[in-house]
Amino acid sequence: MNTNKIPHVVIIGAGFAGLETARGLAKYPVRITLIDKNNHHLFQPLLYQVAIAGLLPSQIAQPVRTIFRKQKNLAFQMGEVISVDFAEKFVKLKGSVIAYDYLVISAGARTNFFGFDALERHGLQIKDIETAVQTRNHLLSMFEQASHEADEAKRKAMLTFVIVGGGPTGVETAGALSELINHVMRKDFPRLNLSDAQVILLEAGPSLINAYPEELRESTFGLLKKKKVDIRLNTKMADFNGQRVTLEDGTFIETRTLIWTAGAKAAEIIDSLGVEQAGMGRVRVAPSLQLAQFPDAFVIGDAAFVVNGNGQPLPMLSTVAIQQGKAAAKNIRRMVEGKQPLPFHYKDPGLLATVGRNAAVARIFGISFSGFIAWVIWVFLHIYRIIGFRNRIIVMFNWAWDYFFYDNQVRLITKE
Amino acid sequence: MNTNKIPHVVIIGAGFAGLETARGLAKYPVRITLIDKNNHHLFQPLLYQVAIAGLLPSQIAQPVRTIFRKQKNLAFQMGEVISVDFAEKFVKLKGSVIAYDYLVISAGARTNFFGFDALERHGLQIKDIETAVQTRNHLLSMFEQASHEADEAKRKAMLTFVIVGGGPTGVETAGALSELINHVMRKDFPRLNLSDAQVILLEAGPSLINAYPEELRESTFGLLKKKKVDIRLNTKMADFNGQRVTLEDGTFIETRTLIWTAGAKAAEIIDSLGVEQAGMGRVRVAPSLQLAQFPDAFVIGDAAFVVNGNGQPLPMLSTVAIQQGKAAAKNIRRMVEGKQPLPFHYKDPGLLATVGRNAAVARIFGISFSGFIAWVIWVFLHIYRIIGFRNRIIVMFNWAWDYFFYDNQVRLITKE
Repeated sequence: MNTNKIPHVVIIGAGFAGLETARGLAKYPVRITLIDKNNHHLFQPLLYQVAIAGLLPSQIAQPVRTIFRKQKNLAFQMGEVISVDFAEKFVKLKGSVIAYDYLVISAGARTNFFGFDALERHGLQIKDIETAVQTRNHLLSMFEQASHEADEAKRKAMLTFVIVGGGPTGVETAGALSELINHVMRKDFPRLNLSDAQVILLEAGPSLINAYPEELRESTFGLLKKKKVDIRLNTKMADFNGQRVTLEDGTFIETRTLIWTAGAKAAEIIDSLGVEQAGMGRVRVAPSLQLAQFPDAFVIGDAAFVVNGNGQPLPMLSTVAIQQGKAAAKNIRRMVEGKQPLPFHYKDPGLLATVGRNAAVARIFGISFSGFIAWVIWVFLHIYRIIGFRNRIIVMFNWAWDYFFYDNQVRLITKE
Repeated sequence: MNTNKIPHVVIIGAGFAGLETARGLAKYPVRITLIDKNNHHLFQPLLYQVAIAGLLPSQIAQPVRTIFRKQKNLAFQMGEVISVDFAEKFVKLKGSVIAYDYLVISAGARTNFFGFDALERHGLQIKDIETAVQTRNHLLSMFEQASHEADEAKRKAMLTFVIVGGGPTGVETAGALSELINHVMRKDFPRLNLSDAQVILLEAGPSLINAYPEELRESTFGLLKKKKVDIRLNTKMADFNGQRVTLEDGTFIETRTLIWTAGAKAAEIIDSLGVEQAGMGRVRVAPSLQLAQFPDAFVIGDAAFVVNGNGQPLPMLSTVAIQQGKAAAKNIRRMVEGKQPLPFHYKDPGLLATVGRNAAVARIFGISFSGFIAWVIWVFLHIYRIIGFRNRIIVMFNWAWDYFFYDNQVRLITKE
């Protein structure tokens, strides 16, 4: 390494983890190149709101260039990384090659369909803006089509919505979709008999949000049931062909809509790195978040397999990604100064999941909340964390409007 | 016609003309079916703002169902009309047939590429949300690519933007694009030399906005020049292949971007109606806006060829469409009551075109304004006419923010 030159840190992925790393090196004498295949940072926890027509993509996505306008040591490059040469220390994109002194891989995760080809073809996912908008367009089209469908069986199938996966995303989506139907679609489709409409949530295991403490799991179940979601635990899906879901016990659900939230795995680029992968395709890293054999390279966020004190891998959560981003930045600073990097320790700040209007569950400082108070905390926490003051005002305005007028603001069907 | 039944009015197209017709029959004893291939009404005058990343699609488009929630005699159907049988009085869509007593065709217009295949393939247009968003994505991508393009000639070509057509749309787009580059892109791309960037406006005739009075044409030229737009009058385009524009005099402009605003013609459905078409494919109608041979059918808005007192066809303007919508509704009411329909007379409410921040031209009550005052009128008129109180607040907030902070709010590149 040329010691006259300031170190070049390359960060792949502008999600929570990548952003925190970049910020953590803001006033530090390094040069940063932040790469992402999109030009925006996505506030993923609210992506399901785009899918059920509650928020606009622009309210949860912000151009990376705008976020880092004031950070002089950072350059953004929009592009897709094809491969990494850890020995020669460069990153290859289509049409360019970028050499690094330190590399941070924060490429995130993608949906895991577990090899179910039919599912990937016919099912919907909520993984990025494109898929969230596709889901929204599909949901709204179902109502449009049902509104002039004379055949009762077909109409019911169009108004049946199946969500697979009882984790936080599945629960939030089911609750919000149920509210969309009962509060908003009811007004837009006055001649449509919405008692035909049904939201069904399938969970293979014995309980919803099974990573959460028991009292929160029970509250969630109750809150979701009150929103008229048909919750089927211990129910595994066998197949979906676009017209009908087949369950493992051989029974059917006639539906045109299946939203798959039941699996995630590391982003595609991770598979081509040639490094050791663990569960869900995530990269096994040292406690310091470095690659064992290439200490100048870090892997953080959803793409990293990091075990906590109990030997369990940390979950794919935004709070984990943010803390790891800060830790990677700190370790890079230490390495630049010739010090040893430190192991990462995750501090659990609590859990939070919403089930819909006035209904959420939270566990903070060891105390469990559910219902309205938890929901208020959820609302303000999300608004606070949305990047950009302007976006915060707009989201607050929109949510206040939706709340008081029982409305959802975006019900456009856009062409793909 | 069954005199026991209330008359069924079918309206094809939920643009300005169709909407005004529907509204004009709101409390009248008719049944209305409003059809549109999209689920939303589009405020077209501001579509160019979506194309230059100044507004979001959702701020200028509103679901038709939401607009008509309170109108009990109206049902909306999302679908595309394939053909009309004027003799048997029914409208054919994919998968359904709708019989009518009165028909209003307000299907609008589309871009006319004048048979230039290469242009249609490589050029951009601003005709609906899909094409406006494509244009926006393309423009933003040009900056992203230029920001890491080492070859100077290629970079200049990426930063050269050609707009063809010196009418209001071309003028507004050129002015707004120039501001995007000089005020906003400058901040997002600090390392990019934007003195390389150029907006070129090509007009085949001897002046811009040639349908406007002379003093407004001159003001517009001056205001646009101040925004550093390279205006080339008496300049005709011969070809565009995606890399270079060839002008009729044989010279070239190296560019990757051509936005075509130089021609419009009636929507595709009009060609399949089997009725007499005049200039721009528009349907020749009687002074009452009825089809001469089928008096139960009206054609209004951009799709209609209506001559004014001077024997000139009325231009494709929203003010014309709105007045014709009201007139069609009035004539239908008269026919239901057994009276004669009345001829339509257009009342010119004035002209208005914007060139960008602080700069517009207007002619109201016979007086010409230009500059800041005209621009203020333009801003408030557009905000007032945007449908939906919530949207008005949001657009006002966004524009106020943009104005004071010299920013544009949506610079997302979305996948197609």
